[in-house]
Amino acid sequence: MYSTEKYPSQILQEAVEAIGSLPGVGSRSALRLALHLLGQPAENIHHFTAAINRLADDVHYCRTCQMIADSDTCSICADRTRDTRTICVVESVRDVMSIEATGQYRGVYHILGGIISPIDGIGPSDLHIKELVERIRGMQAEDIEIILALSGDVEGETTSLYIYRQIEGLGVKVSTLARGLGFGDDLEYADALTLGRSIVARQPFRP
Amino acid sequence: MYSTEKYPSQILQEAVEAIGSLPGVGSRSALRLALHLLGQPAENIHHFTAAINRLADDVHYCRTCQMIADSDTCSICADRTRDTRTICVVESVRDVMSIEATGQYRGVYHILGGIISPIDGIGPSDLHIKELVERIRGMQAEDIEIILALSGDVEGETTSLYIYRQIEGLGVKVSTLARGLGFGDDLEYADALTLGRSIVARQPFRP
Repeated sequence: MYSTEKYPSQILQEAVEAIGSLPGVGSRSALRLALHLLGQPAENIHHFTAAINRLADDVHYCRTCQMIADSDTCSICADRTRDTRTICVVESVRDVMSIEATGQYRGVYHILGGIISPIDGIGPSDLHIKELVERIRGMQAEDIEIILALSGDVEGETTSLYIYRQIEGLGVKVSTLARGLGFGDDLEYADALTLGRSIVARQPFRP
Repeated sequence: MYSTEKYPSQILQEAVEAIGSLPGVGSRSALRLALHLLGQPAENIHHFTAAINRLADDVHYCRTCQMIADSDTCSICADRTRDTRTICVVESVRDVMSIEATGQYRGVYHILGGIISPIDGIGPSDLHIKELVERIRGMQAEDIEIILALSGDVEGETTSLYIYRQIEGLGVKVSTLARGLGFGDDLEYADALTLGRSIVARQPFRP
């Protein structure tokens, strides 16, 4: 007899722990998923893990905007119908996907890869802020608009202000998302209508 | 612009599809988990997939009872305090773990590896039924009890009956799980079949 905390096999236990380390997956779900995988043919399991390993090994990032891509240029930057003089600055790949899903935005993006967060040890130099400044410097400043589309929490505001200070002398227009979103809301959880309205009704950035 | 069904990367899409193929994981959860993994260091992803690959490559099954194990004998069969003359026949590893978690059983197990299901093309020869018969034949028949602990549905009943026919001549006692209302169940919410069986198979009242 063993308790509910113990497993009949070290290998099963390690698989349950690995699956249970995913966000939002509890130990009961992890066990259920591990036993499901255990019941699969080996080739199905290998197919599953190979698809996930490619996330680590084969994913490219767009050299312009840092979006996930299958080559050096993402599908958005490669799209000639997009307005390359409007650059929406976001934290993550997920945020780009959320904004794209609204169908309301025709500009391009710049992904920071995170947000300034002293408590997590993430400073400006850990983010793609320098690349943003260089990207703007490499363009004619006229008619460029930078949309700061970061979360409405303290880290997001701090990061927006930091970026504003870096680019305010470059002669570009700087805006931010309309606060139709509640303060503290994550882009990830916003409904498409609200998020779409927010990006259309974006406001001048007032530091 | 791409719709919510499309992904910025084929690799991401394939990872989302692989994760979404797990039971109970919807496409939104799969995307969330894939993006979480994408944000992890490569070594974390490799650690994750290696733990799952070992389910395919390194797991052993007990040669006596077919339980998952790290060697040829599982921890239950290796436990000398267990009653090896009481064999509980179950469908899967999960069932063994559920019964073990009750702490109420001191016998051993025999895992069939499935259940007879013509609709899924699973017949008796696909299950470890022959091994059960041989296991019983290899023991002194006296005082052996076989507990058929299969599901109460048609497939479970069919499988129980099939196994009973195979072993009824071997001089062993054959029992099955008590069926009835769960402890704490309301009569009002019980299904008619369970309630009917419960009243037919009523037990002496022990205050």
